[in-house]
Amino acid sequence: MRTRVQWRVSVRLVGTVLKWLWVPLLLPLGIALYDGTTTLPFLGTILGTVGLGVGLEQLTDETTMYEREAFLMVALTWLSVAFVGAAPFVLAGGGTIAQPTNALFESMSGITTTGATVIVDFDAHSRAVFMWRAVLQWLGGLGILVLATAVLSQLGVGGAQLMETESQTRDVNKLTPRISETASLLWQLYLGLTGLQVAVLMGLHFAGYAPEMTLYDAVTHAFTTVSTSGFSPRAESIAAFSPAVQWAVVPFMVVGATNFVLIYAVLRGDIERLRNSDEFRFYLTLLGLFTVGIGGILAVENTYTSPEAIARHSLFQVVSIVTTTGYASVDFNLWSSGAKHLLFVCMFVGGMTGSTTCSIKTLRWLVVLKAFRRDLFVASNPNVVRPVRLSGKVVTEDTIRDIYAYTLVSLLIFIVATVFVAVNASRSRVPVTEFEAMGAAASTFFNVGPAFGIAGPFASYEPFSRSTTLVMTFLMWVGRIEIIPVLVILTPSYWRS
Amino acid sequence: MRTRVQWRVSVRLVGTVLKWLWVPLLLPLGIALYDGTTTLPFLGTILGTVGLGVGLEQLTDETTMYEREAFLMVALTWLSVAFVGAAPFVLAGGGTIAQPTNALFESMSGITTTGATVIVDFDAHSRAVFMWRAVLQWLGGLGILVLATAVLSQLGVGGAQLMETESQTRDVNKLTPRISETASLLWQLYLGLTGLQVAVLMGLHFAGYAPEMTLYDAVTHAFTTVSTSGFSPRAESIAAFSPAVQWAVVPFMVVGATNFVLIYAVLRGDIERLRNSDEFRFYLTLLGLFTVGIGGILAVENTYTSPEAIARHSLFQVVSIVTTTGYASVDFNLWSSGAKHLLFVCMFVGGMTGSTTCSIKTLRWLVVLKAFRRDLFVASNPNVVRPVRLSGKVVTEDTIRDIYAYTLVSLLIFIVATVFVAVNASRSRVPVTEFEAMGAAASTFFNVGPAFGIAGPFASYEPFSRSTTLVMTFLMWVGRIEIIPVLVILTPSYWRS
Ligand SMILES: [K+]
Ligand SMILES: [K+]
Repeated sequence: MRTRVQWRVSVRLVGTVLKWLWVPLLLPLGIALYDGTTTLPFLGTILGTVGLGVGLEQLTDETTMYEREAFLMVALTWLSVAFVGAAPFVLAGGGTIAQPTNALFESMSGITTTGATVIVDFDAHSRAVFMWRAVLQWLGGLGILVLATAVLSQLGVGGAQLMETESQTRDVNKLTPRISETASLLWQLYLGLTGLQVAVLMGLHFAGYAPEMTLYDAVTHAFTTVSTSGFSPRAESIAAFSPAVQWAVVPFMVVGATNFVLIYAVLRGDIERLRNSDEFRFYLTLLGLFTVGIGGILAVENTYTSPEAIARHSLFQVVSIVTTTGYASVDFNLWSSGAKHLLFVCMFVGGMTGSTTCSIKTLRWLVVLKAFRRDLFVASNPNVVRPVRLSGKVVTEDTIRDIYAYTLVSLLIFIVATVFVAVNASRSRVPVTEFEAMGAAASTFFNVGPAFGIAGPFASYEPFSRSTTLVMTFLMWVGRIEIIPVLVILTPSYWRS
Repeated sequence: MRTRVQWRVSVRLVGTVLKWLWVPLLLPLGIALYDGTTTLPFLGTILGTVGLGVGLEQLTDETTMYEREAFLMVALTWLSVAFVGAAPFVLAGGGTIAQPTNALFESMSGITTTGATVIVDFDAHSRAVFMWRAVLQWLGGLGILVLATAVLSQLGVGGAQLMETESQTRDVNKLTPRISETASLLWQLYLGLTGLQVAVLMGLHFAGYAPEMTLYDAVTHAFTTVSTSGFSPRAESIAAFSPAVQWAVVPFMVVGATNFVLIYAVLRGDIERLRNSDEFRFYLTLLGLFTVGIGGILAVENTYTSPEAIARHSLFQVVSIVTTTGYASVDFNLWSSGAKHLLFVCMFVGGMTGSTTCSIKTLRWLVVLKAFRRDLFVASNPNVVRPVRLSGKVVTEDTIRDIYAYTLVSLLIFIVATVFVAVNASRSRVPVTEFEAMGAAASTFFNVGPAFGIAGPFASYEPFSRSTTLVMTFLMWVGRIEIIPVLVILTPSYWRS
């Protein structure tokens, strides 16, 4: 029996990830060279991250990971990339994100695909800096795909073993080969979707439907749509573009929050697999229900005069929040309390497992609802055995318990976070209502991005106190990697025999 | 195998309960006679309920109940008593509660020990009417004690079988004898505690510490303290009385939300049982933590100048909300957003199982936390089996799953309810913020009573629209009888074979 976690193995793999960060850093560097803006932030970060990564790789030659090492590797990877990703913001030196705590928040918001920003003045930053924000999110989306399909499903985190994956074998003893195998498959699909969105957005531009759309806009928004992450170089997010662009972005958000293994199956011609997926049907149903709900409120309250605007904004915002993208087609902060509240509830949903989405996810909610219904039946029929089925397969009682536990622990952490944000804001006289505190806590923890009030879609998280900023940075980190890895490594027994 | 629920058996027992309502109705009748106010509302209700009760008893001679009949009996008992209890308010004809929907709300708020009121003008009602409100709550508290210890623990609702009861045998086939046996034991203790509180309050009065306290005040407040229910004949609740009274009420709220079986054990000299109770320790710990939290906020924000006032109001309000009593020693609606938010979170806690308290309850939260901790350990030690223990006894995995499910379904119903309240208030232009809508939904569903804004402790639920009033009446009913009975009888399969 082993006695301790082999942390060197975890850190070694983190080193490999950091070492390769020089490749994505070439993109903002290229923009900086092209625009003639400062290249120092990116050159400096490249040097630093390669040096750090190569250094960490020297810690050990061992590469075999078990559960403990995998949890540590996952937690440290997201944390260390957030630190490295903050360097360009600090080195660039402009605006609110030059301050180190803010830079870490912005970078964590990037790599966790959250999209909450502490930028106040969008004119204070170069196009290269905005490109780096978008690249961080694109990387974060790819990272989470690999994490969800290759790592978490193997570790059985929060019922993730239920997710529809290519292979149903669980062999945690050799995680590393599986990670690279799954990654290569997914990253082609991910790249393809990104390219398709760039093509669609530029097509709209050349057809005259999107005069404001530049190639730079198309690329940065494609990076942050397919990754359901939501950073935009525009202060007004997608509201800066024409209705045609807003409509065009919706399907890419929907696809970004769909299980990539299912998308892959469809591309191979296996449409049955998608049609038989209980989770996919449930995901679309929820999108429909919330859209009708918010559309109904906007219509009854005469928020917009044109039916097209009502349909567009209700669909766009519901898809944006449920898929945890966080884009805004309009300042929903100005909506009535009923509409805002419903949008707040959307934050708890999330898209499908095996996608780039965050939050609790439709798989878990569906199993929770199915298990509830079964429990009610058994309560009045105590002698009947009735298993819970998902897409025709029986869900084990252990998995149901894991999913219950995950969903509950998510809600509990959210509640504790709201207390911190509300009390701290009240103490430091930041103008935040209780609801806005809850919205900001949910939006960071569930990696949605915008919330309400000062955290609204066209506003900035900057007014929050430094301690709140740090707590929100922590929340984004914990929420993105499905909570359990962080909680596990924070458990004292983890570090003992 | 039986084919259908024997609803006649359930309704017969409901008839017996209704028949005996004439006894508690004598109390307000006596007050009306003494005061010379109208006796008609009570005489009329006595005639009606005895007639209805006797009539329902004729439905069948069968008395043996199984699971299905028990669920129906529980749900119908609370619902029918609420309807009968509303009659005196309608017949009395004064103020806002003469309107039938409001009367049903007020009566349901009584029998469910919620304490939310739609009364606007406290001078518009006789002392007899206020006595009836208090009697309803006292009855509701007694009813829930019997329900929790004799019925729900037998049905295993939401892990209730874990509760510390006198007998650990589960025999649902003969529920009726157990109900009367448990009831006779509990009702003496309940009566004793009520009498003790009357004595303490009158003692304070005669010692000069409570000049405002009359015998009528002492009785009505004792009725609504030990039942953790919170209706006061005073518009200003306990804030109408001296600090000494406020301090004196606190221990009675704490005891009212303590497992009565444990109190009974202590009275028999078995103090070890209380000391060994993990749940009791957890309950006191939570009360302490929340009091320190709110006390800290009130102190930092200079809400009160005297340390005694800070200690008193923070302890009183935390105990009042956690035990789901709902009394107010001060208008906490005027507190800062941080303090209000923390008080809002207190609504989700609840006191101990086997008490008169409502909400999710400390037993469930404790099991949830213990199971989480176990799960985290197992995540990094997948080959280790580690059961969850409560007060030394192993909690089965099925029970853990039931408790997870119950806690989650509570939070889900709460979330759905908030959407309805927020959207409906927004539509009908009732001035309610998103947070106040959530507070009102939580306070009615978890049977706390007051919330924030127009539902604040010195305010009234009257401004809510009629449909919201009806939904809140439903929420109080569902929340009070531990959700499952109502959900079970609303399941179509319940009524089939
Ligand atoms: K996002
Ligand atoms: K109450």
